[in-house]
Amino acid sequence: MSEAANSNLSNTKIDVPDSFIEELKEILGDRVSTSAAVRDQHGNAEDYFPIAPPDAVCFANSTEEVSAIVKLCARDGVPIIPFGTGTSLEGHVQALRGGITIDLTNMNEVLEVNAEDLDCRVQAGVTRKQLNEYLRDTGLFFPIDPGADASLGGMSATRASGTNAVRYGTMRENVLGLTVVLPDGRIIKTGGRAKKSAAGYDLTRLMIGSEGTFGVITEVQVKLYGIPEAITSAVCQYPSLEDAVNTVILTIQSGIPVARIELLDEVQMDACIKYSNLEGYEEKPTLFFEFHGTEASAQEQAEMVGAISDDFDGSAFAWSSTTEDRNKLWQARHDAYYAALALEPGKKGIATDACVPISNLAECLLETRKDIDESGFLAPIVGHVGDGNFHLVILIDPDDEDEMHRAHELNDRLVHRTIAMGGTCTGEHGVGCGKMDFLIAEHGGDAISVMRTLKMAMDPQNIMNPGKIVRV
Amino acid sequence: MSEAANSNLSNTKIDVPDSFIEELKEILGDRVSTSAAVRDQHGNAEDYFPIAPPDAVCFANSTEEVSAIVKLCARDGVPIIPFGTGTSLEGHVQALRGGITIDLTNMNEVLEVNAEDLDCRVQAGVTRKQLNEYLRDTGLFFPIDPGADASLGGMSATRASGTNAVRYGTMRENVLGLTVVLPDGRIIKTGGRAKKSAAGYDLTRLMIGSEGTFGVITEVQVKLYGIPEAITSAVCQYPSLEDAVNTVILTIQSGIPVARIELLDEVQMDACIKYSNLEGYEEKPTLFFEFHGTEASAQEQAEMVGAISDDFDGSAFAWSSTTEDRNKLWQARHDAYYAALALEPGKKGIATDACVPISNLAECLLETRKDIDESGFLAPIVGHVGDGNFHLVILIDPDDEDEMHRAHELNDRLVHRTIAMGGTCTGEHGVGCGKMDFLIAEHGGDAISVMRTLKMAMDPQNIMNPGKIVRV
Repeated sequence: MSEAANSNLSNTKIDVPDSFIEELKEILGDRVSTSAAVRDQHGNAEDYFPIAPPDAVCFANSTEEVSAIVKLCARDGVPIIPFGTGTSLEGHVQALRGGITIDLTNMNEVLEVNAEDLDCRVQAGVTRKQLNEYLRDTGLFFPIDPGADASLGGMSATRASGTNAVRYGTMRENVLGLTVVLPDGRIIKTGGRAKKSAAGYDLTRLMIGSEGTFGVITEVQVKLYGIPEAITSAVCQYPSLEDAVNTVILTIQSGIPVARIELLDEVQMDACIKYSNLEGYEEKPTLFFEFHGTEASAQEQAEMVGAISDDFDGSAFAWSSTTEDRNKLWQARHDAYYAALALEPGKKGIATDACVPISNLAECLLETRKDIDESGFLAPIVGHVGDGNFHLVILIDPDDEDEMHRAHELNDRLVHRTIAMGGTCTGEHGVGCGKMDFLIAEHGGDAISVMRTLKMAMDPQNIMNPGKIVRV
Repeated sequence: MSEAANSNLSNTKIDVPDSFIEELKEILGDRVSTSAAVRDQHGNAEDYFPIAPPDAVCFANSTEEVSAIVKLCARDGVPIIPFGTGTSLEGHVQALRGGITIDLTNMNEVLEVNAEDLDCRVQAGVTRKQLNEYLRDTGLFFPIDPGADASLGGMSATRASGTNAVRYGTMRENVLGLTVVLPDGRIIKTGGRAKKSAAGYDLTRLMIGSEGTFGVITEVQVKLYGIPEAITSAVCQYPSLEDAVNTVILTIQSGIPVARIELLDEVQMDACIKYSNLEGYEEKPTLFFEFHGTEASAQEQAEMVGAISDDFDGSAFAWSSTTEDRNKLWQARHDAYYAALALEPGKKGIATDACVPISNLAECLLETRKDIDESGFLAPIVGHVGDGNFHLVILIDPDDEDEMHRAHELNDRLVHRTIAMGGTCTGEHGVGCGKMDFLIAEHGGDAISVMRTLKMAMDPQNIMNPGKIVRV
């Protein structure tokens, strides 16, 4: 590595001169903003991290514009933070070393839909709801649903998943290919439209989950699915958390292809009943189910799960058979985070993200529930439990140092419990700057050094979203 | 990069001194072989490439032994070729720069089966048949089936797939984690047992398909599945290749979750009837189906496919309802390569490996069939057509230069046709030293330069299976 490159491999904050902003304006015109409001808005996402604003925000309209911006930044060693909808949860978009944020919101075009091949290509700023709205008349849908109406670029960058992942997989399984602007401004296409390929290193999977540290994702090719002939939702309530979780475990172990199986504990259920005006439900541990298939197979799945649920004293399934009822139910589920925050107005939430092998889910959840109760925090539990994945929203006052300290201790214990049970420190939220220290505990120092080697090879100047995932 | 490292970054052949072999023997005792027979046996696989033997073959018994061998090799810049069952098809195991081959056959222990989590961990030398035999009493199975009884390490390294991939995915989707000996001898574990994770760069997927160029895979953690309540096979024959392919396309586009849908053209069917003594079938384009599910859902799938097949003048389904019948059928399918070779005893096969988006499958297959007919070669077609993936076995005499030249031209036209139709130069066989030149056509020069950057970062001495995937 040259000395010049080495000297740029710094973690110190960069001062971006006015002349650089002027050069950006030559490319983007008035789509460069240095206003405090816009910079602050891009300086954090839906998390509790302190705002760390960039020096400027660029609103790019095309892959070529992103490339031109990145080339300028590479020339001068200016950090770059890609920004989708700002719904990440681990400090992914903080401009820790300053620099510029590239907002991809304007890149919101669906480029092609290949209905006969069940795939499509979109610009990175297209959101999942927008895509599904666009697909409405094709009989197809895109299943990955992290709750927030995130952009497909951001979802790729963070390896997002969510409620449907138990059946359809995560972004890892559903992205066929990407267009990426590399840290030196070159544009590559990864992957392709074939359903499988053994043609060289898996650059697509290298980018998915790399959180903007290897380049800027500008286009995403994803798999689509036919809208099932039958979609039915059901809600079931349980006398205890253990009963609810055991229903989940047996459902998964039986290989029943449920499309969604979501847990809300009694605290979260209380929050949702209040926030979303859910009628007819009690403050009890609750499972939300969704079944996809032909009429016959969806019916068969529901009957099999119903029988398991009965064994654990679940209430009779409350069915949501109309689309309207179903949408209300799932909107309530998606708003669970906001419902939790509404329990104590003025507080912020630390969203934790444990994921364990399904056989350890009951033990992990029950120990965590006990730990929450002992901690004195209000922390509803909600989870994509079919994948062994669950979240607490620990309600905290970020300005109360003692409270923050104790909340982090609660999260630390959860993470270490998760890892000890064969799980991961993050099922779907990613690492950002919030979970870097846990990576070593999970993967070991040598694996992290390989990650660092990759980062230094891909981005020798450390300009791509610096200070996230690994330290260099 | 230091000058010393640079000087090793060579593609020239290494002379391995006797003293080095002696050092290997200090680690492995008599499990180091320099006999010509053993070296030749490891100098190619089931392909047409000329034998390129290593200087010695090491039979390792443990990850720690592999690490010790690799450390010695790293010290002296000696190339290393990992070797599973030797069933690869693109010159993956040729010792192009000499060096040593590490044969993992002895590492054939199933380390753990977590039945309740539907996963297991095996040493890299465990073969898929061995694993399924081991699992026999658990009610679980491992679905990935490339035909050959390959090792799970080799299948991971080449991103193998095969007949069941249309339903269960490839090794990419089914490997949860790996133990890898890095090019400097350090041992890392990638991934984990959680069903999903967003914890950093996807080192597992980086290794899958890297063909031994990033390290030696010594353990594999894979997903398992419950053996379906109902498994039924059916065979259907068609008046034309087009009718058969159109049945496939409509089946996939209808979202019917067939477990297997395999095409054999009339030439391949002729070969299989003779080789495997299949009774009651004609020399016609043929589809082999398998349906997995509950009794009701397997039945429903078969009825839906039957209706589609009728529309394309398919013969009535010939059912294989007993396990014995079914096994005979699938064994015949697996032996298709050997059946093809038996059509012209003494000839070798060039196995091609096209994979296109399903909507282009008919056009690609028909143009290819025409090209074969015009070429004068005998080249049966067989394919995992549910994924858009098919193979020719071009029967050639490797000593006939003109024939080899024309066979390569036929393959070149097939690859370029495939890429032009949005497909990939290899669906599942991998790159090896046979398909390196096609990677640029498929991915573009800048993407290949990223692959080269990764290779140089991961293996700066270029000792891990040098001369495969990318040139450095």
